[in-house]
Amino acid sequence: MTAENERFNRQLDFLREVDKVKQVFRNTILMDSTRRENDAEHSWHMAICAMLFCEYSNDKNIDMSKLLQMIMIHDVIEIYSGDTFAYDVIATLDQNERENIAADKLFSRLPDDQEKLFRNLWNEFEAYETSEAKYAHLVDTFMPIYHNYITKGVKWKELGVTKEKVLTRNKHIQNSSTEIWNFVCWIVDDAVKKGYLPE
Amino acid sequence: MTAENERFNRQLDFLREVDKVKQVFRNTILMDSTRRENDAEHSWHMAICAMLFCEYSNDKNIDMSKLLQMIMIHDVIEIYSGDTFAYDVIATLDQNERENIAADKLFSRLPDDQEKLFRNLWNEFEAYETSEAKYAHLVDTFMPIYHNYITKGVKWKELGVTKEKVLTRNKHIQNSSTEIWNFVCWIVDDAVKKGYLPE
Repeated sequence: MTAENERFNRQLDFLREVDKVKQVFRNTILMDSTRRENDAEHSWHMAICAMLFCEYSNDKNIDMSKLLQMIMIHDVIEIYSGDTFAYDVIATLDQNERENIAADKLFSRLPDDQEKLFRNLWNEFEAYETSEAKYAHLVDTFMPIYHNYITKGVKWKELGVTKEKVLTRNKHIQNSSTEIWNFVCWIVDDAVKKGYLPE
Repeated sequence: MTAENERFNRQLDFLREVDKVKQVFRNTILMDSTRRENDAEHSWHMAICAMLFCEYSNDKNIDMSKLLQMIMIHDVIEIYSGDTFAYDVIATLDQNERENIAADKLFSRLPDDQEKLFRNLWNEFEAYETSEAKYAHLVDTFMPIYHNYITKGVKWKELGVTKEKVLTRNKHIQNSSTEIWNFVCWIVDDAVKKGYLPE
């Protein structure tokens, strides 16, 4: 096989294109506070968290293969649409439209069958209906809350996030895990007490 | 649940500790040549590659759930042992010993059942016996070869890697995929022709 095989060429092109995910920086900093985290690192860390916390999922019917594949690709389209900060009310207004355009653009680089596979996984994550999508969202939102707590709320304060915003924006966590939701409530209270998060 | 629950506390501790994987930099640069890649990014990109290339695996009995979990944790112990450059003959001499000590240290932070689970996955990867371990190694070694080719062999030349070294060190790829091995041979020849890789 050489790079002249069309199907393989498309797969290689996609593999090169998504390298850009390593340059999409988020509004979360590493736990040692040295720099912002990027989407590739975040996706990897989410997968480790998903493996560690599966016992806390309310829904025990999680297909681990589908879940991890979903986590791996859930943010790849941000190479075109950018990372949308969860508490940015203006940016989240057209987030869905921007991200769908980005998904069309990115996944259409793949051979048809893999375009369908990747797009369906991404759509399923976005639709928040299946067990895997709900659990992936739990991990996706838990990670930045925990990062912010560990890094003493530097980004929360910089970006005007309050206790009420964290609880409102992330209340879906209780659908997926009673235990993790209880811990998030504990984190938020403790963060307020320690001055990491405004009331 | 609060952070005072011992089991949960160990899981959180592990989640924090492996954040350091994002600071373990490899001898591979991003495809846009701007900086070195870290182990978290590499693990994420490997997972995407594994999803894209599964049709090229000689062995069709790959358990995707186990494979992706193995890929996610295959390099985590490098937060203690460091990344060992594949062509560094001296460093690879005691690599196995250093990595086993690192694995003991890292995975023992987990609750016993998860320590066993993660350690077994890591051992399985290292042992290179099962279908998943062989396919994970294929992707693990293909990625830096492809990164080096795309970035015009800057790191190959800087570190004294030759065509013979690439072919010898990575010949195991042919056990896992005839097609990817043929492509690696094509890459190597083309890299020599273009002056990216010394003969």
